[in-house]
Amino acid sequence: MSIETIKWVNQQVRIIDQTRLPHKLEYIYCRDIKTLWQAIHRLSVRGAPALGVAAGFGVLLGIKNIRSTDRRVFDRSFHKLCDYIGSSRPTAVNLFNVLDEMKAVVANNPDATVDQVKQMLRQRALAVYNEDKAVNRRMGRCGARLIKSGDTIMTICNAGALATVDYGTALGVMFTAKHQGKEFHVYALESRPLLQGARLTAWELLREKIDVTLICDNMAAAVMKDKPIKAVFTGADRIAANGDSANKIGTQNLAILARYHKIPFFIVAPRSTFDLKIKSGREIPIEERDKNEVICFAGRQTAPARVKVYNPAFDVTDHHLISGIVTEAGIIRPPYAKNIRILMDTRHKSQAREFKV
Amino acid sequence: MSIETIKWVNQQVRIIDQTRLPHKLEYIYCRDIKTLWQAIHRLSVRGAPALGVAAGFGVLLGIKNIRSTDRRVFDRSFHKLCDYIGSSRPTAVNLFNVLDEMKAVVANNPDATVDQVKQMLRQRALAVYNEDKAVNRRMGRCGARLIKSGDTIMTICNAGALATVDYGTALGVMFTAKHQGKEFHVYALESRPLLQGARLTAWELLREKIDVTLICDNMAAAVMKDKPIKAVFTGADRIAANGDSANKIGTQNLAILARYHKIPFFIVAPRSTFDLKIKSGREIPIEERDKNEVICFAGRQTAPARVKVYNPAFDVTDHHLISGIVTEAGIIRPPYAKNIRILMDTRHKSQAREFKV
Repeated sequence: MSIETIKWVNQQVRIIDQTRLPHKLEYIYCRDIKTLWQAIHRLSVRGAPALGVAAGFGVLLGIKNIRSTDRRVFDRSFHKLCDYIGSSRPTAVNLFNVLDEMKAVVANNPDATVDQVKQMLRQRALAVYNEDKAVNRRMGRCGARLIKSGDTIMTICNAGALATVDYGTALGVMFTAKHQGKEFHVYALESRPLLQGARLTAWELLREKIDVTLICDNMAAAVMKDKPIKAVFTGADRIAANGDSANKIGTQNLAILARYHKIPFFIVAPRSTFDLKIKSGREIPIEERDKNEVICFAGRQTAPARVKVYNPAFDVTDHHLISGIVTEAGIIRPPYAKNIRILMDTRHKSQAREFKV
Repeated sequence: MSIETIKWVNQQVRIIDQTRLPHKLEYIYCRDIKTLWQAIHRLSVRGAPALGVAAGFGVLLGIKNIRSTDRRVFDRSFHKLCDYIGSSRPTAVNLFNVLDEMKAVVANNPDATVDQVKQMLRQRALAVYNEDKAVNRRMGRCGARLIKSGDTIMTICNAGALATVDYGTALGVMFTAKHQGKEFHVYALESRPLLQGARLTAWELLREKIDVTLICDNMAAAVMKDKPIKAVFTGADRIAANGDSANKIGTQNLAILARYHKIPFFIVAPRSTFDLKIKSGREIPIEERDKNEVICFAGRQTAPARVKVYNPAFDVTDHHLISGIVTEAGIIRPPYAKNIRILMDTRHKSQAREFKV
């Protein structure tokens, strides 16, 4: 039974409500863009690739309500809509990359009627959705060679089916390895404050009958010291031109611990996660979220109410801590600045051979 | 208003129930050793120095019920009692060190009557209690010179008044610096799974009007990268002869991150935390606790029930990651094997001068 994280159904966006997992597998039907915006903001749907698809579908929801057949009126409302969608979460670049693709459709067809543009936007949004499905499976095949039977590996947060349309980035690599008949053991970090590792990754790995052990984030060093961890795999929300990678808070921690223990550290992310406009990680905007995520749980307070809290949702892993970046076109190795440039110029699979391990 | 974590009151052990903090400051009165054992086991009282004092008081509770005036009968029951107390928590050596002191009282006085031995044990247990109060203040003075006005520092778990009789080890250093008129800023790690940092350390620092910001454990690297962290201070539960230090799970993580960011990392612990019988950290027994601590919160499940969990309560920080160990007799610097040996031979304050910064 496959997981369908996000889908365009009857002119609505159907998403799994990830705040209810692992207890309940429930869907939210978003009929309008405001409902989807709120679902993104409270993390009912999350994960960089899924957010890209959500942005495309969000445009489709929004343009349903633009009644005018005047292109200038339409274009103005369309750009407001894109700004609104972009205000939901600042860090994952996939969301902005898809909005840019949608904007290009509008900009490149100045003479099309509103109806024609709407039709082209629909095709583009569905293409993003279908590309994500295909790209994830290609990444899975590229990365699976990094896992051998008997290995013990580690991951943080959720880079699974629930972070994409239906397969996953870092977990997609594990799913492919598992389907290839490999047996291995995964340590999943719970990923405070919102426990995506505990709630989502543990749930996904158990579904696929992958041997998984849950740990708190602060146990990673103890596990690396005492257990034979072979590699760490994580997703990414935005990768700068030099390879610096923003991902779930705690990823940089993990990369430093991996380096200390001489364990290879891999990012798994599609080319849509790269942002060549940004030279280094310093320029990536980091979302800070509400303090109640840290000091409350299920409505119960866990710290003095008046304590100050710092709650960045992401951190940036220095590129020199990264052993390789698994993409749908192969595995990029250092030097990243050069190899990322080549990768992003290379749109044909055949030319991506040089990135193989 | 001082915090009285543990006290001998009317032939009972009165402890603050730390599982109720920060919401309620409530006391538990332990009339018998079983009640105290359970309080230790569920962490109503915790922290290596406080556990040492609890062990001494536990003996006093237990011997009340040894009615025989026959020394052989008494001695046998007494040793059973010590074994029982020792079974509550395996890692903090202070507990075992105090039990050894109590055993020495019994062993060194073979000709005393049962009543006389009971009186001597009472004196010894109260001496342990009083020594803790004095030792913590001396440690505070030794360590406070490591903090300057304007500094930003970091700590994990709770090494405060609540981990000792009434003052604290790592937090004692901060309290002393504050009383000296220094103003500084503390990042407190929440310390999963049981959130002693969020619940106890934030509460204690706010009480002392020390500027504190709470973060999740996995945010430490992001904070070290972006904020001017000057030093990390933590407690310890057992320090081996080579300086390897067991402390709250996550401490080794933090020490590795500090090393990567070139931030000094200090342990603050009394001499009663050293265990010279143990050559290195590999020999320190690490308590593994119930999986429900990780997958449940306030009765609410946060991960699939059938997921495997690894829940070590402590980890061991390699001695070469430690910049110094603040004790009541001065600050020990590397080489630890040699300097710890000198420290432990040195029972007189005057001889401890060589450990000063």
